[in-house]
Amino acid sequence: MQKLIHTRTRIEDLGKPRIVVIGGGFGGLELVKALRGINAQVVLFDKYNHHTFQPLLYQVATSGLETSSIIFPFRKKFATHKDFYFRMGEVTQILPEQNCIETSIGTVKYDYLVIATGASTNYFGNRNIMQKSYPLKTIEDAIDLRNQIIKNFELALLTDDKALMNSLIDFVIVGGGPTGVELAGSLAELKKHVFPTDYQELELQEMDIHLVEGTGRLLNGMSEEAGEEALKFLKDLGVQVHLNTFVKDYFNDEVDLSDQKIPTKNLIWAAGVLGNPTEGLDPEVHTRNSRLKVDEYNRVLGYDNIFAIGDVAAMITDTLPNGHAMVAPPAMQQGVLLASNLQNMMQNKPLKKFVYQDQGSMATIGRNKAVVDLLIGKKPLKTQGTFAWLIWMFVHLMSLVGFRNRILVLISWVWSYFSYDKSNRLIIGKNEREEADVVI
Amino acid sequence: MQKLIHTRTRIEDLGKPRIVVIGGGFGGLELVKALRGINAQVVLFDKYNHHTFQPLLYQVATSGLETSSIIFPFRKKFATHKDFYFRMGEVTQILPEQNCIETSIGTVKYDYLVIATGASTNYFGNRNIMQKSYPLKTIEDAIDLRNQIIKNFELALLTDDKALMNSLIDFVIVGGGPTGVELAGSLAELKKHVFPTDYQELELQEMDIHLVEGTGRLLNGMSEEAGEEALKFLKDLGVQVHLNTFVKDYFNDEVDLSDQKIPTKNLIWAAGVLGNPTEGLDPEVHTRNSRLKVDEYNRVLGYDNIFAIGDVAAMITDTLPNGHAMVAPPAMQQGVLLASNLQNMMQNKPLKKFVYQDQGSMATIGRNKAVVDLLIGKKPLKTQGTFAWLIWMFVHLMSLVGFRNRILVLISWVWSYFSYDKSNRLIIGKNEREEADVVI
Repeated sequence: MQKLIHTRTRIEDLGKPRIVVIGGGFGGLELVKALRGINAQVVLFDKYNHHTFQPLLYQVATSGLETSSIIFPFRKKFATHKDFYFRMGEVTQILPEQNCIETSIGTVKYDYLVIATGASTNYFGNRNIMQKSYPLKTIEDAIDLRNQIIKNFELALLTDDKALMNSLIDFVIVGGGPTGVELAGSLAELKKHVFPTDYQELELQEMDIHLVEGTGRLLNGMSEEAGEEALKFLKDLGVQVHLNTFVKDYFNDEVDLSDQKIPTKNLIWAAGVLGNPTEGLDPEVHTRNSRLKVDEYNRVLGYDNIFAIGDVAAMITDTLPNGHAMVAPPAMQQGVLLASNLQNMMQNKPLKKFVYQDQGSMATIGRNKAVVDLLIGKKPLKTQGTFAWLIWMFVHLMSLVGFRNRILVLISWVWSYFSYDKSNRLIIGKNEREEADVVI
Repeated sequence: MQKLIHTRTRIEDLGKPRIVVIGGGFGGLELVKALRGINAQVVLFDKYNHHTFQPLLYQVATSGLETSSIIFPFRKKFATHKDFYFRMGEVTQILPEQNCIETSIGTVKYDYLVIATGASTNYFGNRNIMQKSYPLKTIEDAIDLRNQIIKNFELALLTDDKALMNSLIDFVIVGGGPTGVELAGSLAELKKHVFPTDYQELELQEMDIHLVEGTGRLLNGMSEEAGEEALKFLKDLGVQVHLNTFVKDYFNDEVDLSDQKIPTKNLIWAAGVLGNPTEGLDPEVHTRNSRLKVDEYNRVLGYDNIFAIGDVAAMITDTLPNGHAMVAPPAMQQGVLLASNLQNMMQNKPLKKFVYQDQGSMATIGRNKAVVDLLIGKKPLKTQGTFAWLIWMFVHLMSLVGFRNRILVLISWVWSYFSYDKSNRLIIGKNEREEADVVI
């Protein structure tokens, strides 16, 4: 038996069952919130000490928001939860026979285990793209991308080689989902409102923003109207959208598309996600895109006390052969339901099945430009433009963790709206990942 | 002749004299501001793309302020300056005979050169301290220290070894100047108001904060009253102040003081600064603490067109055998005067000598606790306590670069005042420097 880490368990909690949650994303956070007051030790593991509000990462990457206003410390969030324990560390292995997990800080026993580890970027096996493109899943990804955009503009000033200059200031974004659409719109606004004063010495009309999507439309998770209007908004902003186009490779600073090659040092990869499961479970329970098959109670198939929620969980039914969409709302709803089901389990009460309440989805392209598909009850509301943009802002503000963060983001948005400015164009620290080599 | 970098000089600026400024700290920033409208190309070199407001770094390090609210992009600051050019890069060598500088991005010619490179941390030749202690001069230093404080508290939870636990949560700060005093006060407030809820599992009464100062008093640049009151404030907050005490070494996580040894993994070094001159000038013009000897016009001795301002400049006179204090006000005043003297030079007018207008100095220890020595005209005003604290906040807010930063810092302060909270206790990115090894 592995040495258990010392958890400094409070005396009154000894003997209570222990629920270990891996990952404090949208699903994990809602689960822990809803477990408040349950008669158990709740232990949250995360490799960060903070929750990240992923939907706004693109605004950090494009200098619109500061890092700290979209992340929130777990210890602060759960300061008043009596039975709550946070442990910062990476979970490396599940040992289901022994009811314990191995982590970077030791081995921990569990009575119930919840895997809420989310998703990672899917490079579809292309090593060149994995090594040289920019993903946007973590706060470090966002800072790296922001640093790199600004560095490349600084470098572009220094060269007489027009091809090199273009390669430094041109962008190719792959993936026409919300992240790709929002990033493309945000870069177009930088080009229009911010870079002309910052880089007066550059020929900014040369800055091209390409958005590449494999299917015939944008925003596949949304209505046709939303996809079409997003396309129109992006074109108005000067973004070059390539539909029905695939990326074959990325080599020598050149993106190899199915119909052309585009030279750029800025390839941003928002083309797909994979489940991010922890090692140690039966290979049979993994789907082809690395999610964990769960039943309608979010129990991983074949295990009594191991659960998965959110992006990493594939609740496959006759009507949903691929499980729920890998977005925040199913994760949050599964977290809330699982909390009450865990309580039911401990009290030998019957469990409730998960039924997803779809409330719609939305994406923003730029100021006064958003697309919203809402479901109010069962009534659909589709809207695009300024009203949609106000809804988008309101919903995102309300979803942020922490009142202070809401205030700070609101001030940043109001400030940007009136000044047309994005104030955080700062290079901070060295990039975590290998940087593009530039020889001037 | 070295290849000159292409500066994409605007056509109308060709032929104008070029003033190259190395470093956008307090001195460089004021100089460039005051050079607005001068009939010359003004080129600012800095290895960062932003100004750093160093006096508030300690609040970033102790989770009080977010990074981006105390730094400001140069390009934004000087967006409306017509003759201004920013270049991000490190200046490696001055070649005075050829009137040019070598930089990480190429070689640049100058007509006038201003060295405003500030100061770096003085470890007094001790390699152990240099490698293992935390300095606080740059924004990366502040982030590294913040990351490390939180990581060490997370690790402290995991050990049964009481000595190790103490070593992780105890602090030794060396240097009783403003940085040391303000850091000690800020850590004491974390201990009192923030850590008790974040780390309920720890025996926080074991957290010791030591402040070590070599002389017999704190805040040597200020009045005796200020030093005494700061000492009293720190003692009230539970800080252990060691006066007349020297650090001999730092080895095996143990600070070797002149009278005792204190085990800690957190040694913060604010004990001294050295000038940070660029290579290439006559060794004769360097002082023992690496500053550049300048005349009363801030001209480096023996050079016609090379100037130094701020911390890196030592204006030695009969009354000032060590030059001006290495703090912001002389740097800013020298920057302003040098701008007009450069204009005078170009117009063959007589130059004005620098006369320092001392307006006093101040330091804060915690909420409602600051010490202020003001000189209003020649009338001294000494005050300590709440009123001093309000003055300190007002002066620092007004000195910040950018209206938006002032608003954000004000909100953070008001928020902290009423909530007793410090919200930015976030670990972001990997540390730039080698981290302390901890084996649990």
